[in-house]
Amino acid sequence: MSLLEKFFAGDVQALSSLITEVESRSDGCQAIVAAIYPRTGRACKLGITGPPGAGKSSLVDRFAGELAAESRRVGIIAVDPTSPFSGGAFLGDRVRMRSLAGNENVYIRSMASRGAQGGLSVATFDACLVLDAFGKDWIIMETVGVGQIELDVAQHADTVVVALSPESGDSIQASKAGLMEIGDVFVVNKADREGATNLVTQLNMTLEVRRKNEPWSYPVLATVATTGQGVAELGQAVRRHREFLGRHDRLAVRRKTQLKSQLRKILEDRIRATVSRRFHSDPDWDKLADRVYLKQETPYGAADRILAAWRS
Amino acid sequence: MSLLEKFFAGDVQALSSLITEVESRSDGCQAIVAAIYPRTGRACKLGITGPPGAGKSSLVDRFAGELAAESRRVGIIAVDPTSPFSGGAFLGDRVRMRSLAGNENVYIRSMASRGAQGGLSVATFDACLVLDAFGKDWIIMETVGVGQIELDVAQHADTVVVALSPESGDSIQASKAGLMEIGDVFVVNKADREGATNLVTQLNMTLEVRRKNEPWSYPVLATVATTGQGVAELGQAVRRHREFLGRHDRLAVRRKTQLKSQLRKILEDRIRATVSRRFHSDPDWDKLADRVYLKQETPYGAADRILAAWRS
Repeated sequence: MSLLEKFFAGDVQALSSLITEVESRSDGCQAIVAAIYPRTGRACKLGITGPPGAGKSSLVDRFAGELAAESRRVGIIAVDPTSPFSGGAFLGDRVRMRSLAGNENVYIRSMASRGAQGGLSVATFDACLVLDAFGKDWIIMETVGVGQIELDVAQHADTVVVALSPESGDSIQASKAGLMEIGDVFVVNKADREGATNLVTQLNMTLEVRRKNEPWSYPVLATVATTGQGVAELGQAVRRHREFLGRHDRLAVRRKTQLKSQLRKILEDRIRATVSRRFHSDPDWDKLADRVYLKQETPYGAADRILAAWRS
Repeated sequence: MSLLEKFFAGDVQALSSLITEVESRSDGCQAIVAAIYPRTGRACKLGITGPPGAGKSSLVDRFAGELAAESRRVGIIAVDPTSPFSGGAFLGDRVRMRSLAGNENVYIRSMASRGAQGGLSVATFDACLVLDAFGKDWIIMETVGVGQIELDVAQHADTVVVALSPESGDSIQASKAGLMEIGDVFVVNKADREGATNLVTQLNMTLEVRRKNEPWSYPVLATVATTGQGVAELGQAVRRHREFLGRHDRLAVRRKTQLKSQLRKILEDRIRATVSRRFHSDPDWDKLADRVYLKQETPYGAADRILAAWRS
């Protein structure tokens, strides 16, 4: 059996192999997506993001556990931080410490964002397609840290959950990072700690404007992921958002926007790859760099010259 | 007097305006670089990077203060972190807390990396050109946090200083982040704290391989930036590295590599801008996204179609 046949037969090893292919952006990517694409579009895509330490993994594990208990098939993509200094845990550790290991309805995959630049966002989108075609009912994308890449990834989702904790001025930081604008559902986790009620109030105030402009309630929920408190309500809020999207074609609009953005990123990646290939192989670039070094040309003049040569 | 005339007459306001132009990537960028480019290439470019909390700003301030006391003219570009969660201080605060405010030999400029993607690296390079043409003897680029952008920026420098502190397992993290490969000079700051001697030893061990392969000593220095201890030695090490580069044309080789890389980034930025412009204006993209949504086409097939249309 070919890899794709195994995949369509429900082989988890084949699923992993295909995700590795799209993650590594191998030449086979395009063929894989072409083969699976007709079987996609069914899964609910949930994104969850927020600062390190907010307890996102625990929330995801609880929520995924509940879904799995209802015989829902869940795929989790955990995107690890770009920088080892950003405070998140690392790949291996995160997978190891998850409570879901061994649950046959749940598939967990870590993807590292470091050095990936634009490519990670495209890769994550493709990994969602793979999980979707595999028959997962829910795909949860979890991003630690909130750089541009993380925002991009969160926006592949149909529903975005922003998770904060009462510690360390999270609400101000969330605003700065643009999280308040991308969230559909907000969670104050570690709600048994001091400052939780305050944070809920602050978030509610910040969300007033969005609530006025959109017919969605942007709920703010209090949870304690470690005990499971509030996780059922989170699940309900996510489902309600899903129903909301279903009305008036909102889901279609969102997904078309996602596809357009994905298209754009694929184009950018392709062009970057072309530039890179020429950069490494074209002897004229060395000569041009010499000319720029000798001030016979500015960097921009040299760039114009290269672009003109490409166009002709 | 035109802005450029004022700039060449030594007007600091004009300097700030030109840096704002290159930072915002305005249409005038290219003309500015063309006008100033012949007067560049004289300044020593120093990059300093490392995890948040290593005391880079304090080190830079001390070192810049010493240079200024010798009547050297210094320009500092402080690149602020991409993510508000990465632990660094913010723009306004960093400028405010600097001890150099009011020193007429020193010009300090913050540039924010958030959302800048590839553009920041190009902008920082151009800002260095502006400072260089203004007559600065030293240009110090300080980056907080260590994502890809920060690594790029550090590599615009002739000499890269990696600053760590004895806290929080910095040496392992520095290795993970690729800092051990880009540093020319290493600093263990806060050397009066516990673990400093250990960290120096670890760094020395890690650097053994590089020392064997390159005729440079990759010194590891212990400093206490708050008291100034070791800062003179850091200055000496940086100057020695500069002399080392001067021998056997190493500086020329490094700068040509930088220019080639800058050229590449300018090309990528140009192409990205073109993609972005078409993305927002081309009605065909919407139609294509619809086709992709309806599964009449994969995202990659649509991208191929767009590229083919561009080529013809």
